[in-house]
Amino acid sequence: MAQRCKQLIFLGDGIGDRPLDSLNGLTPLEYQSTPALDFVATGGECGMMYPVRPGLPTGSDTAHMAILGYDPYKYYLGRGPFEAKGVGLDVRPGDLAFRCNFSTLTDGLITDRRAGRIKTGTKELAHLLNDTFSGGIEGIQVIVKESVEHRAAMILRGEGLSAEITDADPHEDGLAPAIVVPLPGHEDDPDAQKTARVVNEFVKRSAEVMATAPINLERAKEGLPQANALLPRGVGTAPHLKPFSEEWGLNGAMIVEVDLVRGLGMYLGMDVINVPGATGGLDTDEIAIAKAVVEALATHDFVLCNIKAPDLAGHDGDPWEKCAAIAKVDRAVGYLLDRIDWHNHVIMIGGDHCTPCALGDHSGDGIPVAFFGYGTRPDAITTYGERACATGSYGKIDREDTMYILGNLAGSVHKFGA
Amino acid sequence: MAQRCKQLIFLGDGIGDRPLDSLNGLTPLEYQSTPALDFVATGGECGMMYPVRPGLPTGSDTAHMAILGYDPYKYYLGRGPFEAKGVGLDVRPGDLAFRCNFSTLTDGLITDRRAGRIKTGTKELAHLLNDTFSGGIEGIQVIVKESVEHRAAMILRGEGLSAEITDADPHEDGLAPAIVVPLPGHEDDPDAQKTARVVNEFVKRSAEVMATAPINLERAKEGLPQANALLPRGVGTAPHLKPFSEEWGLNGAMIVEVDLVRGLGMYLGMDVINVPGATGGLDTDEIAIAKAVVEALATHDFVLCNIKAPDLAGHDGDPWEKCAAIAKVDRAVGYLLDRIDWHNHVIMIGGDHCTPCALGDHSGDGIPVAFFGYGTRPDAITTYGERACATGSYGKIDREDTMYILGNLAGSVHKFGA
Repeated sequence: MAQRCKQLIFLGDGIGDRPLDSLNGLTPLEYQSTPALDFVATGGECGMMYPVRPGLPTGSDTAHMAILGYDPYKYYLGRGPFEAKGVGLDVRPGDLAFRCNFSTLTDGLITDRRAGRIKTGTKELAHLLNDTFSGGIEGIQVIVKESVEHRAAMILRGEGLSAEITDADPHEDGLAPAIVVPLPGHEDDPDAQKTARVVNEFVKRSAEVMATAPINLERAKEGLPQANALLPRGVGTAPHLKPFSEEWGLNGAMIVEVDLVRGLGMYLGMDVINVPGATGGLDTDEIAIAKAVVEALATHDFVLCNIKAPDLAGHDGDPWEKCAAIAKVDRAVGYLLDRIDWHNHVIMIGGDHCTPCALGDHSGDGIPVAFFGYGTRPDAITTYGERACATGSYGKIDREDTMYILGNLAGSVHKFGA
Repeated sequence: MAQRCKQLIFLGDGIGDRPLDSLNGLTPLEYQSTPALDFVATGGECGMMYPVRPGLPTGSDTAHMAILGYDPYKYYLGRGPFEAKGVGLDVRPGDLAFRCNFSTLTDGLITDRRAGRIKTGTKELAHLLNDTFSGGIEGIQVIVKESVEHRAAMILRGEGLSAEITDADPHEDGLAPAIVVPLPGHEDDPDAQKTARVVNEFVKRSAEVMATAPINLERAKEGLPQANALLPRGVGTAPHLKPFSEEWGLNGAMIVEVDLVRGLGMYLGMDVINVPGATGGLDTDEIAIAKAVVEALATHDFVLCNIKAPDLAGHDGDPWEKCAAIAKVDRAVGYLLDRIDWHNHVIMIGGDHCTPCALGDHSGDGIPVAFFGYGTRPDAITTYGERACATGSYGKIDREDTMYILGNLAGSVHKFGA
């Protein structure tokens, strides 16, 4: 089937919610005035999306995987590889990837897991560690890369690795770095034993070389906490995922504010676009984001955009903050409505999951979605909200159906059969 | 995710139906006044549930398995193991389990498959048989246990067993006990051949020893039919099912009137609660059942309750009887509405399948369901019935989604991803 138009998925992270007494029994989406979102619902086709399965609370990573058509039950092996890709590491299928913290080790105990939220010098430390371990450990290649502040990522590459191991990060101050061991049930697995040995050796030797690194000598002079330990955690195996362009035959871009999702986009080989003013916070510049979306659509077949603010408000449990965040999403969509030619574009608005204020966490509730533009069969729904969209003509959309529905409208999904 | 409230599934067995001329084109649920069920629908979120798959008529066993989150296509291997567990046998994964009837054998023919619905003495007969076969048959352990009246169950335990065999029960009077053989397609399977030999040997030797059992000598004196044959049928292999508590992290109870479902509950390690006055008939004490539910919720995270009466009325093909049975379910739900704090409980009302009066049998029609209480997003539906709930905001609920949806509301389903 020939592609007939361009495709846009525009998500408010965690935008769905539950009725709140403080909003007169309405959800934030129902309470907040959202003229642009309602325009989309009125002129489009609505439904309730459950990206992985109805009722299953999802993370941002698994939800975005499912929305992009990759079954997380089949492919998700932990957040590590996406985080590592997001900080710029060359993660390859089969690699073990870890999040890490530069931490402060004092007399054998971790006294600050974030090394005083160290601002500079971690690039040099990562360089030092990569030099130190250039010969590998037990034949396993070790690659470290710094990220913002105390954050870093590490990959292990080689034969006989296993993700079935515990964290080196003790997860609280005042404890020694945890000795890494195979997870319960994997005690006798030689790969898990070896991987644990490699990580333990890495933690020990990296602390030795960082103790005398110039940046730490300087920090000592300034009375700042040392960055003399690097603690891996959250290990995951890099999955074999077909690049987005191969999977869907689309030249895709991603404009998102969550590092984890950016990492997924990079892992899928999508163009991940940075937008100045996109802070990932409640103060983000939604118009700058919308402008970037319009520009990205000029040069791509497919764009996925996600504004993080509603999720933050949901985690904060603040309905008014969530209404304000939703107003931001609405303004962004209003900007798009004015500037995109809907005769050759199709958009799905929605979210990756719900983050109900009453829970302060993700839920497995249905996410209202609306498809608008080329190819749609507008239904009777006139507002964008949880209960309105639930009676829309797409009904329940679940598992990996979203990309098929959007691609069907755009003409990018190939005919199956004759 | 932390559990936020307790969960209740409250089912009217076979409650769904089809429009009936005698009810002016309404279904029994639509015709009968059901103020409590309508209150739940009004204040809750409705949908149409197809426990296994849309259109597939299910048994009570397969439907309850799916509702409890166990895929019957994957795990169901016959009713035998649940029946055997229900009568109190220690059924273990891999066991072959059979339903059995104590029957009357006269001159080589079965003259009464129910041995005059024998009231007492089957316990002694089971004891006699267990003694007789204490050495096993061809290395296979044989265990018999009596149930109510002529009913009993048997398990075979050991290596080299197969469920691919015919019944010993001829299923009608006037015939000889059937010689058990491998099922078509399994004639050359040594396990099926061996299992058939074991059952045939069991039927032959059990008849020999029961012929002179004291209970039968007494019955002869009283002119009662002998209980001198035990006829296995309905063989099934006991499946490997994770206990409910492990599968869902919930401490679960079951209050049901169907032995087969009780057996499933016991097999899953749930607390199966007996309620005096719960007869399993049209005369059941629905308020006693509702009281037991309230009590069970005090000490359990999760309760499943099923009132059998609507199914009986459906099998009888009697719309008025079905309306009366539905009124019983409504009264029970009314009792619950008054006594449960819905700020920390969530309920799903529904059925396990439909038993339309016009069919006198189970159908694969959608079952109206309504979720009410903590966490729900009430939709516009104001009556509990087949056609009303079909437009509810949950839309179609199928396969094993029910426990996820309920668990999402209660906060007992873990987040997948980061």
